[in-house]
Amino acid sequence: MQGDICDPDRPAHPGIFPAGEAGQSDHQPAELTVDFPVSVVLPAGGTGERTGLQTPKQFCSFLGRPLISYTIQAFERVSWIQSIVVVVAKENVDLMTDIIQRFQHRKVRVVPGGSTRHRSICNGVLALGEQEEGERLPTDRPKVVIIHDAVRPFVEEDFLYKIAIAAKEQGAAGAIRPLVSTVIATTSEGYLDHSLERAKYRASEMPQGFTYDVIYQAYQRCTESDFEFGTECLHLALQYCGTNAKLIEGPPTLWKVTYKRDLAAAESIIKETLSRSACVITGGSAQAVTLADAFQKAAGALDMELDVVPDLMGDNGRYLSKEWNFIQVSVNHSCLSEVESLLMDLEAANRALLHPLVVIWVHLSCSDELSISRKMPEPAAIMDVASSAKLRNILVYAIQLHQSKDTERWERSVLRVAEITSALIRERSPALVGQLLQA
Amino acid sequence: MQGDICDPDRPAHPGIFPAGEAGQSDHQPAELTVDFPVSVVLPAGGTGERTGLQTPKQFCSFLGRPLISYTIQAFERVSWIQSIVVVVAKENVDLMTDIIQRFQHRKVRVVPGGSTRHRSICNGVLALGEQEEGERLPTDRPKVVIIHDAVRPFVEEDFLYKIAIAAKEQGAAGAIRPLVSTVIATTSEGYLDHSLERAKYRASEMPQGFTYDVIYQAYQRCTESDFEFGTECLHLALQYCGTNAKLIEGPPTLWKVTYKRDLAAAESIIKETLSRSACVITGGSAQAVTLADAFQKAAGALDMELDVVPDLMGDNGRYLSKEWNFIQVSVNHSCLSEVESLLMDLEAANRALLHPLVVIWVHLSCSDELSISRKMPEPAAIMDVASSAKLRNILVYAIQLHQSKDTERWERSVLRVAEITSALIRERSPALVGQLLQA
Repeated sequence: MQGDICDPDRPAHPGIFPAGEAGQSDHQPAELTVDFPVSVVLPAGGTGERTGLQTPKQFCSFLGRPLISYTIQAFERVSWIQSIVVVVAKENVDLMTDIIQRFQHRKVRVVPGGSTRHRSICNGVLALGEQEEGERLPTDRPKVVIIHDAVRPFVEEDFLYKIAIAAKEQGAAGAIRPLVSTVIATTSEGYLDHSLERAKYRASEMPQGFTYDVIYQAYQRCTESDFEFGTECLHLALQYCGTNAKLIEGPPTLWKVTYKRDLAAAESIIKETLSRSACVITGGSAQAVTLADAFQKAAGALDMELDVVPDLMGDNGRYLSKEWNFIQVSVNHSCLSEVESLLMDLEAANRALLHPLVVIWVHLSCSDELSISRKMPEPAAIMDVASSAKLRNILVYAIQLHQSKDTERWERSVLRVAEITSALIRERSPALVGQLLQA
Repeated sequence: MQGDICDPDRPAHPGIFPAGEAGQSDHQPAELTVDFPVSVVLPAGGTGERTGLQTPKQFCSFLGRPLISYTIQAFERVSWIQSIVVVVAKENVDLMTDIIQRFQHRKVRVVPGGSTRHRSICNGVLALGEQEEGERLPTDRPKVVIIHDAVRPFVEEDFLYKIAIAAKEQGAAGAIRPLVSTVIATTSEGYLDHSLERAKYRASEMPQGFTYDVIYQAYQRCTESDFEFGTECLHLALQYCGTNAKLIEGPPTLWKVTYKRDLAAAESIIKETLSRSACVITGGSAQAVTLADAFQKAAGALDMELDVVPDLMGDNGRYLSKEWNFIQVSVNHSCLSEVESLLMDLEAANRALLHPLVVIWVHLSCSDELSISRKMPEPAAIMDVASSAKLRNILVYAIQLHQSKDTERWERSVLRVAEITSALIRERSPALVGQLLQA
């Protein structure tokens, strides 16, 4: 696939990163303040039959983490959202509880769903009004409830903000998108009856927002038939509360993982988002700095941001708390102590909790020092370190290159390091960890 | 992403394979016979603004080949389709002509498009009625014209057959799909007016089919406004010819590459389709056969079909004409002659014309013969062979493993060969060619 910079599908402020860890602070929107309580209901009871998979799509894993966890994270990082209620089928309550514990999600409660989408959302709304384990009073119920799909993981804070504000003002608000296909009405015999004028209609998407009172009343007043066959919350608000929802055009990032091809698309977006930047640690050696500088130029062409630091001490410790991949350069000495020390730092920072982290050891040998044999890294030792790190969700790869006085040869090697590094970081292949590659 | 067997998005009879090369002959539908002439118009004038890319999406490359070429191939392999007219913007006529030559497409003509979708399709339809370079008489005009989008590459023969037959019988036929989102009507102020009952409507998709007379008359009679603002050919057939199109529900494979995320999804489907099977060449050595058998078991768990053959002589030459990846096993001797010979066979068969082909050299060393040093493959030699093969669209990788009498150790190595092989074949990374990996 061609690499292009502009990408309207990919979140500019990735929702897959926890608050304060976005690593793209210059792209962060100005703080959006919401001075009323907002909670979220995430219906996640779907069976995923349209993907053709046995696992419901909200529980499908991406880089070792279920999709629903990415969606929860997108809300968790928004400071003004006070709580998230996830509604799952009864048989998945334990699974969901495990996911929340394993990925250390906060602000989340799990509620068993009903037999239809509306019954599940209604359970979630009612749960928000209930006293929770003696901690909250019933008056803590939110002013606004945002309803979202568990399978739209890339929703962003600025759009949630628009929905929350409009919902408070109008009683209801919902995301819309232009129609991709013409919509047609069919006769009962399967022939074209008429086609709709595309410009007059929109696709109703998620998130939607409601004041608690509107969504609560809508569910109190609606019929069994609505609960059984209805799909559109905005329709209930209109029919039973007389509330005409404000419609707001959302970005393409709101798309819903529906078919199996969407799983591949979601994985690709997640991988791409995690592959934007790498931190090169030189250890301060002049040769390593020269390599890192050349590498930085080559990486620019590959559309990857590279920062070069001598070590992670002091202020550079900030790289440990952000979404960086790491490239450790060692000159001449074949010992893995620098990589092992980096791995310890990364583990201490709990950096591989939410997705696998990439560490690449670049071994540079300069032929005018020591004997070749002493400088060669030992493949078995690298494989051991990598196998152990893999168990802790850190993917370690190694690249070896020789310094050359032949400029052309040297530039070719540096370019190859950049290409290999970029490929390893983007593909994050568990099968290739511990390999020593040649540049 | 989790690997699942069932996948409604992916074509069962991959349209990305040329006729007679599907490699899945047991899955091929029975021969579908169409006893009237059918031609295709492929409007490909879109600017791709929804992907956010500079390159229109029909020209975006997947594994080195533009999307439009995959779509052309899907039609080219259908024996009963007599010709394909691709309609492109004037400035892309040369590019399109180059693509047709480079990928050796047959049955294809390029026609310059108009300023709107309907004008472009109309140009294509008119071109089908014209005498082409003195070769065809005007009476060669097709009975049925199929109109499809250049950016729906996974359309399959059996669905085209249904459309062609229904179009001949009814005058017009079109693909429909269930709506994924509720469709709503908005007020001019941006509020909800009403929502449509989802069950009564369908999304109109492609392909569509028309008798030549119906589509020709529809364009003769329609207004400038239709040409300018219309999007739906079925609507023109209804309005101007009184033809109620037959609507046929299509498979999810009909999806349209619309957003950038769809490029990732398409690439993933193409890669997965190319990674289903590999042919292991043992050279007949007993150790290689033992390895291949163990490997075959391990590969089963990775959902890849593996055939084991001693060589590609005689009847086994059939593997050269199908969509297989190749794994050459060499025992003890470190010379690359077997791989080089395989590469020559693959080139002679022109197997890397349409997509990169993967060749993995597995080097097995048995410690009870020869000295270790003589048996080691030379990384630089592998890199040279691989660099040269890459220029011809063949991706060569190498894996080294040592035979061990320790059963557990041996099984771990074999499993690692299977995992590495599977990852290399699926990812097809150009950056990693020529690497010697350890199993």
